[in-house]
Amino acid sequence: MNGKFVVIEGMEGAGKSSAIAVVSEVLNQAGIDFVCTREPGGTPLAEAIRECVKRDWQEQVTVEAELLLMYAARVQLLENIIKPNLAKGTWVIGDRHDLSSQAYQGGGRQIPAVKMQTLSELALNGFKPDFTLYLDVEPEEGLKRARGRGELDRIELEHISFFERTRQRYLELADKDNSIVTINTMQSMQKVHDDIRQALIKMVKE
Amino acid sequence: MNGKFVVIEGMEGAGKSSAIAVVSEVLNQAGIDFVCTREPGGTPLAEAIRECVKRDWQEQVTVEAELLLMYAARVQLLENIIKPNLAKGTWVIGDRHDLSSQAYQGGGRQIPAVKMQTLSELALNGFKPDFTLYLDVEPEEGLKRARGRGELDRIELEHISFFERTRQRYLELADKDNSIVTINTMQSMQKVHDDIRQALIKMVKE
Repeated sequence: MNGKFVVIEGMEGAGKSSAIAVVSEVLNQAGIDFVCTREPGGTPLAEAIRECVKRDWQEQVTVEAELLLMYAARVQLLENIIKPNLAKGTWVIGDRHDLSSQAYQGGGRQIPAVKMQTLSELALNGFKPDFTLYLDVEPEEGLKRARGRGELDRIELEHISFFERTRQRYLELADKDNSIVTINTMQSMQKVHDDIRQALIKMVKE
Repeated sequence: MNGKFVVIEGMEGAGKSSAIAVVSEVLNQAGIDFVCTREPGGTPLAEAIRECVKRDWQEQVTVEAELLLMYAARVQLLENIIKPNLAKGTWVIGDRHDLSSQAYQGGGRQIPAVKMQTLSELALNGFKPDFTLYLDVEPEEGLKRARGRGELDRIELEHISFFERTRQRYLELADKDNSIVTINTMQSMQKVHDDIRQALIKMVKE
């Protein structure tokens, strides 16, 4: 039986890392083998691309170059890590996947939906996660939490309106897709983790 | 008046570097200001992407990742170097441009034409060189010359059939496009340089 691809999505400071810890715990308790990935990254080439995307270059990074780099890293991870693991029955927990590009580049950077769809189709050929947990956070609050962790990268230094558009797109897409569950992270950490556990256990049992 | 974008295309060992020297000489004699670019590369980010593409990774580089990286580097160079120079009247001599992807990824790697067109359109938005010199060489002969220069990179280590498909695509595309002039490089160097000079002077006078 194929493994499942569970993706954790959300903006800076939404609590993706601790959500991944909760997901790992649930899968461990259920005796499910899994590997963790992150995007952009997760293979030698994809990690080099991540460095290209995150670095603060002495030049303007064009919106299109950023988008193409994200998909180059994604297809590399998909073909070399995600698909082979799923094929041998290992689950994959993804720290971000295609929904991030839809939200950040499509929503935040306002790349037209038709371009986004074309590129996603060209690179992923219809591949989709089995289940996505979208951790929703207000941008102001998320950035406050992220700042507490130290240095922010090139993308994390965007204007607040960029993050508002990004969040809006996340919410719209989550609303339209049954495989995406939105978790409100503006609650106590205990409640957030309970919500994640509950959503995941329901999915594991299906 | 806008500058013109002159591209030198061709496979390994076709003689691109010496062709660029001839082109530079002709433009200098005509009193035309120009800059030289190379692809992939030519900006800090694009050079980092070049390194990603050329390196021999400890993993299979997917055809799609390679293609997306090429276009990421291309759009970065186009927007940050090529277009601003042309706009201020400076000519640009390009060591490779979109035709390379059409030939290597489309022809050599056999990526379907519709994918190639979609991506090219998405990244370049219809931008085209004013004039392209395609230096034609038989793959065996080109690789022999390239080997003489030392180490070959990941792409240059492909099977000979890859280069045969690439050359075929170059020839087909050159045949269909009036702005591409094919130069036969399997002649004396003197004759090759004369052909380049002649084609270029004709274009400069237009």
